Amino acid sequence: MVEGFKASAVSADIKKNGKKDLALIVSDSPASVAGVFTRNRVQAAPVMLDKQRLAGGVCRAIIANSGNANCCTGKKGMEDAVSMTRAVSEALGIDPQHVMAASTGVIGEPLGIEGIEEAVPGLAAALAPDGFDAAAQAIMTTDTRAKLVTKQGEISGKTYAVTAIAKGAGMIRPDMATMLCFACTDLAIDVVALQEALDYANMRSFNRITIDGDTSTNDTVLIMANGASGVRAKKREHREAFAVLLSGVFEDLAKMIVADGEGATKCVEIRVVNAASDKEARLMADTVANSNLVKTAFFGEDANWGRIMAAMGRSGADFDPDRVDISFGSVKMVENGLGCGPDAETAATEVMQKEEFSVVIDVKSGPGRASVLTCDFSVDYVKINADYRS
Amino acid sequence: MVEGFKASAVSADIKKNGKKDLALIVSDSPASVAGVFTRNRVQAAPVMLDKQRLAGGVCRAIIANSGNANCCTGKKGMEDAVSMTRAVSEALGIDPQHVMAASTGVIGEPLGIEGIEEAVPGLAAALAPDGFDAAAQAIMTTDTRAKLVTKQGEISGKTYAVTAIAKGAGMIRPDMATMLCFACTDLAIDVVALQEALDYANMRSFNRITIDGDTSTNDTVLIMANGASGVRAKKREHREAFAVLLSGVFEDLAKMIVADGEGATKCVEIRVVNAASDKEARLMADTVANSNLVKTAFFGEDANWGRIMAAMGRSGADFDPDRVDISFGSVKMVENGLGCGPDAETAATEVMQKEEFSVVIDVKSGPGRASVLTCDFSVDYVKINADYRS
Repeated sequence: MVEGFKASAVSADIKKNGKKDLALIVSDSPASVAGVFTRNRVQAAPVMLDKQRLAGGVCRAIIANSGNANCCTGKKGMEDAVSMTRAVSEALGIDPQHVMAASTGVIGEPLGIEGIEEAVPGLAAALAPDGFDAAAQAIMTTDTRAKLVTKQGEISGKTYAVTAIAKGAGMIRPDMATMLCFACTDLAIDVVALQEALDYANMRSFNRITIDGDTSTNDTVLIMANGASGVRAKKREHREAFAVLLSGVFEDLAKMIVADGEGATKCVEIRVVNAASDKEARLMADTVANSNLVKTAFFGEDANWGRIMAAMGRSGADFDPDRVDISFGSVKMVENGLGCGPDAETAATEVMQKEEFSVVIDVKSGPGRASVLTCDFSVDYVKINADYRS
Repeated sequence: MVEGFKASAVSADIKKNGKKDLALIVSDSPASVAGVFTRNRVQAAPVMLDKQRLAGGVCRAIIANSGNANCCTGKKGMEDAVSMTRAVSEALGIDPQHVMAASTGVIGEPLGIEGIEEAVPGLAAALAPDGFDAAAQAIMTTDTRAKLVTKQGEISGKTYAVTAIAKGAGMIRPDMATMLCFACTDLAIDVVALQEALDYANMRSFNRITIDGDTSTNDTVLIMANGASGVRAKKREHREAFAVLLSGVFEDLAKMIVADGEGATKCVEIRVVNAASDKEARLMADTVANSNLVKTAFFGEDANWGRIMAAMGRSGADFDPDRVDISFGSVKMVENGLGCGPDAETAATEVMQKEEFSVVIDVKSGPGRASVLTCDFSVDYVKINADYRS
């Protein structure tokens, strides 16, 4: 496990069902900290608070609640976010500026701050090196499974670790629900390099399951690095290896998020190749990955490639429809804009019966490529979201 | 009824259920014609054909099939579109260049042109002044109700009429399914003024239930004007009055389309007022109107205004969240970015139980306004679209 970190979780009665809804992660010593936040114009109080405190570069603890987003809550919301972190600083005897906060849940309702303040001493008392599972459970909203990944890295024969927990987005785009991720590493690494590694890892993982700029009010990714392993990322190659390791952790979590999408039964990679540019490829991949008609066809296991072509056509990307090939897994369904016939459709339908498969779109016009993960769109998604608050 | 026009419909075995799937509208004399088409990069063969023929400015007949989009069908698809119109020109003894075509249905499958060619003589024989109801039925795909509107106008004491049929989009955005509308008027009006009136009417109706540039592969709006009423739109005020009348026809059809959205149980107007500009207002209205989370909340009759704020926040529009007011009908739910409490919520929930209501978003930053119609997003939508081709 990751050295010098502890975690815990309790119920503070924010969730109506009595489940755990308050999590705490603490570093034994002051840690370097880096963060990535939502770009939504409407930002939750804890997001605004964390962005201020991130400038200090040092963090000891992260407190997070589920069941309430503490967003659109005005001045009182900001006071509540500060109170959450103050409660932790008092319970642990640490600088309040070194505590970050995160919230996820319903927007626009006052946070039950009294319940949280009452719960914090018990939360602090429960801190344990093996508390990450409980913390991962406590940040869940409509997630059905807790999400925790640990990986080890090596520098000059000495090992260090990264542990991260995450909660998923409803469906797949964080604009649909909040994505939270808290990572801890016992590597020693300076703040600038830590932020670079976080940006790199985020781009290759959580940003592949989202639309740029298209995020919820609360999305937060934080990482603390406390150096407790005694391993230091001195050289550039060490920092790069760490960034790759962190990417791997985040990619695993991103896949878990998609697979656990609200009502999802399938995890599908939309891969666009040979586009005019990476940007054009991403535009097409995003539009296909977010098309309700494509996603319902995935749910129906219907290789309805016309919906894919129609989504590409409205994406704003430039391409020649008469040159497009589309494959489901290894089955070519479309060649130069035309369907490959009933046998291909039968084979593609078999591919779609799997829980994971790829749709590869070859537009044959340049070196651009992009890959986006999506899930299918089921009857249960609507049921979950029509009833979310009740 | 509208003078000098006839319509008819038959089954050409394109739809698997044996229902009517082929419609014909004919003007007794050569008519002025105007059109608006999809801006999707992928365009169906009949759309490409019509755009060429529209340049001639004259039309005698429109033939339209449902059950197959004749899109992504290559060279053969264009040949089939031409064959459809040739069959009509032969049956009626008219110039093939004066026949337009439209198709809606599954993309990427070959059109059953033989069945259409066999059906056309019967279709021509069935032409009748009261055939518009049958034609409106024959262009339906997932629509549950045929859509037909007739209105009368008056110039210098003499009346003329507009009759139009339409088929609806799955859900509400035409990117989700094809929108077709065919209008006939017995007013005499030149081609340029006819196109201006069509653009004006389209902007105030079908474009309020869509996203600019975000259309299906087959969307088509055509209007023929044959002058059979003997009334001529000579003066500018006549042409303007006609444009307003046509708007009224299209607005009625647009409302019918939204109310008949796939699985829809509610028709909701999203109205943004006092935005920095009309463009910014539209950006917010569109994003709210198309948010799956907002639409599922409508279905659940849950006044979850946080989802509205979150959608506005990711729209790309600039606004101050702390100044936003949101009302459901006449019930103010949010004032200056903060919820108005449980009583307001109870009252808003009552508003949402209606089949039609408005959500008014006041951003208090300028003169900009926009209004978009949307529907709720139900369990049935997913069922309809998961099973569409089977």
